[in-house]
Amino acid sequence: MTKNDRLIYLPLGGAGEIGMNAYVYGYGPEDRERLILVDLGVTFPDMETSPGVDLILPDISWLEARADRIEAIFITHAHEDHIGALAHLWPRLKAKVYARKFTATIARLKFDEFGLPLEAIHTVEPRPAKVQAGPFSVQFVPISHSIPESGALVIDTPAGRVLHSGDFKLDETPVVGEPWNPEVFRDIAAEQPVKALMCDSTNIFSTHAGRSESSLADPLRDFISNATGMVVATTFASNVARLKTLAQAARASDRSICLLGRAMQRMVSVAEETGVLTDFPRIITAEQALEVPRRNLMLIVTGSQGERRAASAQLARGKYLGLEMKEGDTFLFSSKTIPGNERGVIRVMNAFSEMGVEVFDDHGGMYHVSGHANRPDLETFHDIIKPAILIPMHGEHRHLREHARLAITKGIASEVVTNGMMIDLTGETPEVAEYIEAGRTYLDGSALYGAMDGVVRDRIRMALNGHALVTVILDEQDEPLGDAWVELMGLIDRTRNGQSLAETMETELTEFLDRAGRKVLRDDAKTEEAIKRIVRQVAMEEIGKKPEVTIVISRLQEG
Amino acid sequence: MTKNDRLIYLPLGGAGEIGMNAYVYGYGPEDRERLILVDLGVTFPDMETSPGVDLILPDISWLEARADRIEAIFITHAHEDHIGALAHLWPRLKAKVYARKFTATIARLKFDEFGLPLEAIHTVEPRPAKVQAGPFSVQFVPISHSIPESGALVIDTPAGRVLHSGDFKLDETPVVGEPWNPEVFRDIAAEQPVKALMCDSTNIFSTHAGRSESSLADPLRDFISNATGMVVATTFASNVARLKTLAQAARASDRSICLLGRAMQRMVSVAEETGVLTDFPRIITAEQALEVPRRNLMLIVTGSQGERRAASAQLARGKYLGLEMKEGDTFLFSSKTIPGNERGVIRVMNAFSEMGVEVFDDHGGMYHVSGHANRPDLETFHDIIKPAILIPMHGEHRHLREHARLAITKGIASEVVTNGMMIDLTGETPEVAEYIEAGRTYLDGSALYGAMDGVVRDRIRMALNGHALVTVILDEQDEPLGDAWVELMGLIDRTRNGQSLAETMETELTEFLDRAGRKVLRDDAKTEEAIKRIVRQVAMEEIGKKPEVTIVISRLQEG
Repeated sequence: MTKNDRLIYLPLGGAGEIGMNAYVYGYGPEDRERLILVDLGVTFPDMETSPGVDLILPDISWLEARADRIEAIFITHAHEDHIGALAHLWPRLKAKVYARKFTATIARLKFDEFGLPLEAIHTVEPRPAKVQAGPFSVQFVPISHSIPESGALVIDTPAGRVLHSGDFKLDETPVVGEPWNPEVFRDIAAEQPVKALMCDSTNIFSTHAGRSESSLADPLRDFISNATGMVVATTFASNVARLKTLAQAARASDRSICLLGRAMQRMVSVAEETGVLTDFPRIITAEQALEVPRRNLMLIVTGSQGERRAASAQLARGKYLGLEMKEGDTFLFSSKTIPGNERGVIRVMNAFSEMGVEVFDDHGGMYHVSGHANRPDLETFHDIIKPAILIPMHGEHRHLREHARLAITKGIASEVVTNGMMIDLTGETPEVAEYIEAGRTYLDGSALYGAMDGVVRDRIRMALNGHALVTVILDEQDEPLGDAWVELMGLIDRTRNGQSLAETMETELTEFLDRAGRKVLRDDAKTEEAIKRIVRQVAMEEIGKKPEVTIVISRLQEG
Repeated sequence: MTKNDRLIYLPLGGAGEIGMNAYVYGYGPEDRERLILVDLGVTFPDMETSPGVDLILPDISWLEARADRIEAIFITHAHEDHIGALAHLWPRLKAKVYARKFTATIARLKFDEFGLPLEAIHTVEPRPAKVQAGPFSVQFVPISHSIPESGALVIDTPAGRVLHSGDFKLDETPVVGEPWNPEVFRDIAAEQPVKALMCDSTNIFSTHAGRSESSLADPLRDFISNATGMVVATTFASNVARLKTLAQAARASDRSICLLGRAMQRMVSVAEETGVLTDFPRIITAEQALEVPRRNLMLIVTGSQGERRAASAQLARGKYLGLEMKEGDTFLFSSKTIPGNERGVIRVMNAFSEMGVEVFDDHGGMYHVSGHANRPDLETFHDIIKPAILIPMHGEHRHLREHARLAITKGIASEVVTNGMMIDLTGETPEVAEYIEAGRTYLDGSALYGAMDGVVRDRIRMALNGHALVTVILDEQDEPLGDAWVELMGLIDRTRNGQSLAETMETELTEFLDRAGRKVLRDDAKTEEAIKRIVRQVAMEEIGKKPEVTIVISRLQEG
């Protein structure tokens, strides 16, 4: 380590939100640091803030401008909020990608879909295997979570050791994958003191100790064996351990198992291929399921968040692949509802209720456990790692703040670091080095654009206010040719007196055009301003609302 | 009771949803029943299903067509989901309105705002006072809830006694208003057997007994006295008991009290005027609050659901009436988040977190209790009333179904009755008499229109897909005059090659117009179809998305 070198940390996503994880580390002289990126995830749009958008990705402009300085990309695990943006944004970065086998297989499937080079993705064995990436030496440390092969990263730099937790929980009996092993982490801390721990903050507000995935086996077996008709359960597609627990519980009740939903089928087959998942009961197809008596059938389906296109919502609307829920059947959410998805989940629940289906949620945790470390587990983790600095990550501001406070209480230096804050970790305490513009990129159809580009703002305005379109034709002498024409979209075409609102606007506009005179009409800006004012005034009077207005003034030239 | 008379029940809102309560009862010969309406509430729009809408009201077309048969409207209590549509829809019904004093005062304030006749609203004393409304004799029975003077209704008809619970809980120490008194309800059942109980179902899934409003006094006093800076608490504006508990806890900690939010100030002043609220500590204005040291100040504010315009959200964005939250201050949600409002509440929480404010939610019920009867309380209520028939109301389908099932388990006849189902209650079991079209009416600005009128559908489409506008001018020979013109709104104006999307569309459209020929161009429908196809095809190729398209073809006549 030379005098001018520094170690920096810069979250581009995931710090100040749950989702869209993307964390940059850098080491070297200021503005010439060599860089690595940990995770490149997405977050999901909603109608309120991002209507019509398909996915939300981190804004990687800062990184793209420094692509020649990127040594590698590391993906901690295959959840969409950690890997989902990789295939979309990789062409702008073109760095080597490192992941454990299961994650790498998922990444390759995505690269294949996008026509990207599969050889960019490298499978890494767990510690003690190392990846040397410029000044960084990186090890994957198996850690339990709600997807196979989640990895914490030991990142050794000339300025010291960093531990990047990734998403994790302390599960000694995780059903699938490696159990939590405190010895491994004690060794890491003993081998070399941990300068900085970047730590998952999702469950900082959960005050009880976390429960193991395996604690669900008995309750789920009892639940399923008590059901009389068909049983349908939903959970996150990637929660392979849960799928196994559900499937084994079904087998114990003499039920055949059918998986519905492409994402779920893919996860199970990748988990089996990579050797992560063994002893999964035999799966039958939807077609075969049609032949099985209802009381001998269990469907495990996608759509635990009420997503409109997922299998659960399809079943809630009627037949799906020939299968149909009926009175006496049972539907189980072996999941929790992510805040913001309540309406969709409730819609599905009520649709099933109308069919006479018994619907159950997780019953206060009896049928679901979280994949993240709760507050007491985080404290255990801190105590084992004994970092000099703790930077909370993967959380909303309130989570980061609470986590930082907890660390400080225990004498660990800490700082709330949100997206775009570049932190210098070289010294004993974290110092803010710089603020970077770290926004969001929207994937909308096939286009990528910035969240602040105004596209979505206009959509929201049209949705709230409706849209009035006015066309006016003027001749070479700036005289109106014909009447003004108004089209309304998303507005009620009826005035207080029962007339057409569009026609009322046209009458007012035509009057204006007739009396406006050349001085106004030869000036597009003035004419548009006047037209807009009239349209909005008429709308306000008649329907109490000011629409968005688009005006097209056509000026005809003599032929 | 003559042989051909029948007793009917028809929910127009509130049955199959929580909110928008409106229940019709009728008695008389088929299609000539005399009618009463119980409650006329609203529900609230959301961006996902009803963007730009201000309020959602029941569709009262059925009732309006039979306005001459309406004897009276009864309002059980002053929550917006029971009274909110009254002033909007009363002009279509023009029936006498009956309510208890507090509710009637709120109703008169609304009528006054709308310029409606105040004398239409009649204050009714509690049972034994009676309102005779045609064949119905109606009594208001005080019952505890989360607003003053909630009333259950005893509705006596020639076909027997109906008890309409309204919203209620069994609170023996409700802080404000009459305590739950089982004797009163035992008397009602003893006086005359209850044929049918229409019963609140909101909390059917809450399996523990409900807790009293007064149980919050100690925890809130401790909470507030432990805070060091300014304390700000939010709850529902109409929860006058909670406001009193909060204010008294503040006084106990030597804090002055300031109420922020018009709705809250109005509720307190109506409650004091009507004698419902006594001993409320002195309130200071926002201006006076500015002079009080932070540790001697408590604000009680509107916005427990994160509503953007309410006081809590204003404070989360910065100064509000000169008042400002600072590091070391405390914000308390003495409320629960209604499903669907999570995002707004979380936004407010994180904004406060960024300011360094300590944010607390209800801590699993320590700082909030529900206003509705939980499952064991409902059972107690059933056992006291001993109805022959129980019709669950005020709930989503899943609540109604669960409540009906509970009733049937206890040997009570029950039926899941949702909006638009007319039920004949004359016999021993409820029978479906008819299905009525029972939709929703949108208040949007000053206009009222049906939810199915297509206005909101178009808004959602524009929000999801963007909007492309095309104008084309043709002369008398159907020859294009000038080029096609495209305006985009809510679409990225950039192709894969970095060109303008609008210009790319214009080029394609102009080519089409040049080669289309008179046979196509003289036909508006054909021309529009072709233009739409081209616009959507170009958009699909360039941005992977098909926009909504509005086309204006102007045909110029020779002058």
